Amino acid sequence: MESKLWELIQRVKTQSPLVLNLTNYVVMNNTANALLAAGASPIMAHARPELRDMVAISSAVVINIGTLDEYWSDCMYTAAREANAAGKPWVLDPVGAGASNFRNEVCAALLGYRPSLIRGNASEIMALSGISNAGTKGVDSTAASNEAQGAAYSLAATYGSAVCISGATDIITNGSDTLYLRNGDPMMTKVTGLGCTASALCGAFLGVSDEPLTATAAAMSMLAIAGELAAAASNGPGSLQAQLLDALYTLDEATFLQRLNISSHA
Amino acid sequence: MESKLWELIQRVKTQSPLVLNLTNYVVMNNTANALLAAGASPIMAHARPELRDMVAISSAVVINIGTLDEYWSDCMYTAAREANAAGKPWVLDPVGAGASNFRNEVCAALLGYRPSLIRGNASEIMALSGISNAGTKGVDSTAASNEAQGAAYSLAATYGSAVCISGATDIITNGSDTLYLRNGDPMMTKVTGLGCTASALCGAFLGVSDEPLTATAAAMSMLAIAGELAAAASNGPGSLQAQLLDALYTLDEATFLQRLNISSHA
Amino acid sequence: MESKLWELIQRVKTQSPLVLNLTNYVVMNNTANALLAAGASPIMAHARPELRDMVAISSAVVINIGTLDEYWSDCMYTAAREANAAGKPWVLDPVGAGASNFRNEVCAALLGYRPSLIRGNASEIMALSGISNAGTKGVDSTAASNEAQGAAYSLAATYGSAVCISGATDIITNGSDTLYLRNGDPMMTKVTGLGCTASALCGAFLGVSDEPLTATAAAMSMLAIAGELAAAASNGPGSLQAQLLDALYTLDEATFLQRLNISSHA
Repeated sequence: MESKLWELIQRVKTQSPLVLNLTNYVVMNNTANALLAAGASPIMAHARPELRDMVAISSAVVINIGTLDEYWSDCMYTAAREANAAGKPWVLDPVGAGASNFRNEVCAALLGYRPSLIRGNASEIMALSGISNAGTKGVDSTAASNEAQGAAYSLAATYGSAVCISGATDIITNGSDTLYLRNGDPMMTKVTGLGCTASALCGAFLGVSDEPLTATAAAMSMLAIAGELAAAASNGPGSLQAQLLDALYTLDEATFLQRLNISSHA
Repeated sequence: MESKLWELIQRVKTQSPLVLNLTNYVVMNNTANALLAAGASPIMAHARPELRDMVAISSAVVINIGTLDEYWSDCMYTAAREANAAGKPWVLDPVGAGASNFRNEVCAALLGYRPSLIRGNASEIMALSGISNAGTKGVDSTAASNEAQGAAYSLAATYGSAVCISGATDIITNGSDTLYLRNGDPMMTKVTGLGCTASALCGAFLGVSDEPLTATAAAMSMLAIAGELAAAASNGPGSLQAQLLDALYTLDEATFLQRLNISSHA
Repeated sequence: MESKLWELIQRVKTQSPLVLNLTNYVVMNNTANALLAAGASPIMAHARPELRDMVAISSAVVINIGTLDEYWSDCMYTAAREANAAGKPWVLDPVGAGASNFRNEVCAALLGYRPSLIRGNASEIMALSGISNAGTKGVDSTAASNEAQGAAYSLAATYGSAVCISGATDIITNGSDTLYLRNGDPMMTKVTGLGCTASALCGAFLGVSDEPLTATAAAMSMLAIAGELAAAASNGPGSLQAQLLDALYTLDEATFLQRLNISSHA
């Protein structure tokens, strides 16, 4: 498993998959830079008239509803439909699911397009599954990620999606197999949009692999370990953001394997 | 006064108020990061169908017209109305007021919703009050902040708002009391959107205090002193932006009180 | 030539031209910061009702189609028309031209407003000229910049525009004279939107000069040399982005002239 993850990290660098992102205004710059630092090629585009063309040249699509509105949600439906039509994997990041009825309705519609992967925090995953009405406080999670595990299984069974619950321990499941990733640093929660960055990287890895569980684990572990390295080299969240991109760019196999803490038991 | 300001800075960290931002594309990332670094919780959302829900879970609302258009201005009216209906404080940042008739019309409409606080540079505050036709050059101020003081008093009297004029000396008034803050560093003007960051932080502090004058003074002094620390540690505006977030995150009481330069006389 | 370029760099600092940017969401923050670091004054605005007012107070306009949609493309047409009506220079950055029919149609319409300068990578310039169907992979160039030189001459002849092809060697032509700039660092391609930053800086320099060829050469050489300095001081693309702004801010004449590698032969 561990060497497979590193092999996928190398594959992203050598294949440089094109990742089409319909994402939120807050994180567009950071997620584009994270994709570049990891060796992928980002496109940020959302106009309905061009989504078919853009999906056609992309290896994966990432849909992040962070700053959605009526126009953007229509664009997101189109992108999800085109991804399905073209047989391209797509990632749903349901930012703030549960915080408004509008967000919930858009999420419900997007789930109908059966995302290859759903990545969110515990509150968002529980809101999506309808299992719980756990309070959403902004885009941070107020429920521990393991409480959402049942919700993840339910989503995986209903939509055939892999699901990743971000938290102190990331939980990644395809419905049958489940992985627990214990990397990362608490200071990462003080930088906006690192969850969105995680989703974007997942898109890159899905673009070079047919195994969503492994691809997601590779993306999440790369980011979490880069975050550990960045936090150790930082005095606060401002430096962490810059250091994180450097760490994604320079991460080597020995460091990755030494720090990696992933297993198939809780 | 001085210890009250530090007490509010601590209160933001402990209460972590949720701040709903309808702000411009340029600064969304930076303002979200500044709110996180100060201990608050940012939401960036603007879609009209979800503003009632979003205001309901927020402690304060920040409306910044920097990259407004016809859709966004409608969203801003809705957000201001919902903030009033829910009894939540809201901040108006009239970026570029005076630069176009469209901006002035939107500002006039927003003033009708009686912002809890108006924060802008001298040109913008004068444009708002209609006292002056001081030229606007981009979003920088071309009029010294003290010249705008009359405009601030006029706005405070008409709309019941606190007003903060940013400049070399920040002037903060609620119409009866006025504070003069002499912190900050000139290099901060070479980083885009630190005025917008100031407005966002003011939102966080209004979210934990019923005294707009004191809350604004606390937010402005925290940012200005963090900016001094960041400038001292920087070779230019690129490092300053990262260092500023670190300084907001690590600011301690002794440093804050030692550097604080605020008084009630000009 | 060399001293003329430095003289223009100084002129931007002393005149601080106001540059109106209709640009993409990904790079708004970075391009605003780059303009500030170089001494110019950025405005980011796009609403159709205010474009006439905004163009009137600006020295130059930059139109970058990176995250275009139907609303923004209409705004771009208005801005280009107003720039022409007001006699202000304007720069077209055709991000991703060739990647979708929609993008190509918008570019065709914008070309009809005869940009003062077109700046793109080799794929984009070739897509614009219709000379070639070189594949577009995201917003990176897949064709060497010298292959696009014929396309640049064609565009210059048809639209009276200066053209800049970014690449390992930047090629800048006004149709009769051509300059080859051999500065920059490969790590710059790992930071999103440095091409967009280049276009924004070109706008600032066109705002203080009547010679598009020289103005473009000054902007491109300033950025490329700042990029060299930043790369030498960086461990990866995250630090490079911050260091680049510092280098734009602190660049001195001796360093600039020592590193400058520009000539009128290929």
